[in-house]
Amino acid sequence: MHPERIRIVLVNTSHPGNIGGTARAMKNMGLSRLYLVQPKRFPHEEADWRAASAQDLLETAVVTDSLEAAVGDCQFVVGTSARERRIPWPLLDARQCAQRIAALPPSEEVAILFGREDRGLTNDELKICNLHLNIPTSDTYSSLNLAMAVQIVAYELRMVSTAPDTPVQEDAQWDSPFATRDNMERFYQHLEETLVDLEFLDPAAPRQLMTRLRRLYSRVRLDEMELNILRGILTEAQKWVARARKTPD
Amino acid sequence: MHPERIRIVLVNTSHPGNIGGTARAMKNMGLSRLYLVQPKRFPHEEADWRAASAQDLLETAVVTDSLEAAVGDCQFVVGTSARERRIPWPLLDARQCAQRIAALPPSEEVAILFGREDRGLTNDELKICNLHLNIPTSDTYSSLNLAMAVQIVAYELRMVSTAPDTPVQEDAQWDSPFATRDNMERFYQHLEETLVDLEFLDPAAPRQLMTRLRRLYSRVRLDEMELNILRGILTEAQKWVARARKTPD
Repeated sequence: MHPERIRIVLVNTSHPGNIGGTARAMKNMGLSRLYLVQPKRFPHEEADWRAASAQDLLETAVVTDSLEAAVGDCQFVVGTSARERRIPWPLLDARQCAQRIAALPPSEEVAILFGREDRGLTNDELKICNLHLNIPTSDTYSSLNLAMAVQIVAYELRMVSTAPDTPVQEDAQWDSPFATRDNMERFYQHLEETLVDLEFLDPAAPRQLMTRLRRLYSRVRLDEMELNILRGILTEAQKWVARARKTPD
Repeated sequence: MHPERIRIVLVNTSHPGNIGGTARAMKNMGLSRLYLVQPKRFPHEEADWRAASAQDLLETAVVTDSLEAAVGDCQFVVGTSARERRIPWPLLDARQCAQRIAALPPSEEVAILFGREDRGLTNDELKICNLHLNIPTSDTYSSLNLAMAVQIVAYELRMVSTAPDTPVQEDAQWDSPFATRDNMERFYQHLEETLVDLEFLDPAAPRQLMTRLRRLYSRVRLDEMELNILRGILTEAQKWVARARKTPD
């Protein structure tokens, strides 16, 4: 476990107290990298007060205008989610997720996303994730406070980091680095463009096609060489379409 | 595990916000019995606000003048403690402690004590406990917020109460059956054929291309719907190549 490779990303947080509580929860468990995507109110004295002796995390927090800017360089992105999705995504509870993260190669950058207090992460935000994380709660009152949710996840990360031995991930030894979020996004755009060229995807009625393909490729975690192969195939397909289009039928 | 036999006892709490946060943390994890030994300020609007939808726990909270009055009828008392004791006491971490509590006879009344924000439980208070509980934290900043500590303990109690016997696979809930080996083999053949059509794969010098693509798709375990989508894309690509080939260059 390499806590210095893990960033906690709060998306569009409303209450500064929750930002402070998150900073303290992180530092208590040995995490230090806080990212804030469009916080409503920050910096704020309520955040400082709740952070207690973790004010240094607020001072070094990275504030961004977009989620992409916060996670673009990450190889593994986890999104916390309370809801059932229409299209199920790979899903683990907080403990299994911590084990999974602990088993990643130490060079990988990891982001764990926490959504808005009132409605969590949007579907579009959840779609960029390799994995969804759920914290088991009571059926009668499942709405965890944001900083509490961070506390539980940070605690599980700490528990696994101090556990005697963690299982080895099946792709811990690999021959090519795994793709970053930014490169994956370029691939999805190229894929979508090509499917439109092929007339396989109708932009006027896209249905769930791209969502299903995103789920497929985020599940597999493409390495950079695989990404280049797939983009090479897309480029060739586009050339053939262009050649065919020059022809009168 | 019988959550209705477990009471959370806050001793001499200073900040009403922590009482509210505790109530919410408990209810989120299915606990309902809150005891308050000489709280400094209670009831209080800050407690109500932080409790959110767990105000019912504040309304039914039992306020007592002494610790004995709060735990006198209990068979098993656990005290949370951050410090090393001069005389070592039976000590477990939060997870082991939850397992221990789950293994108690269902008729037993259990109390878990949480001390003051600034200095925890006194030695005299810790001495009445059957067991001490410690939450692992970072060495550099070990002072957990009170409600956060309750959250972690309540979470571990919930985890043990709902623990399945076998680990859950991340794709256990899925919307389409996973592809059979036979269908995967047909897909690989179709893929190879298409890559030859596209002139992306040279059958005379195939190199490791198909091996890499096989590794990619066997890693992901395609479901049947994804398989159909990919084969649909291949079929479209083949049609465009055929159209282009009818053209004189």
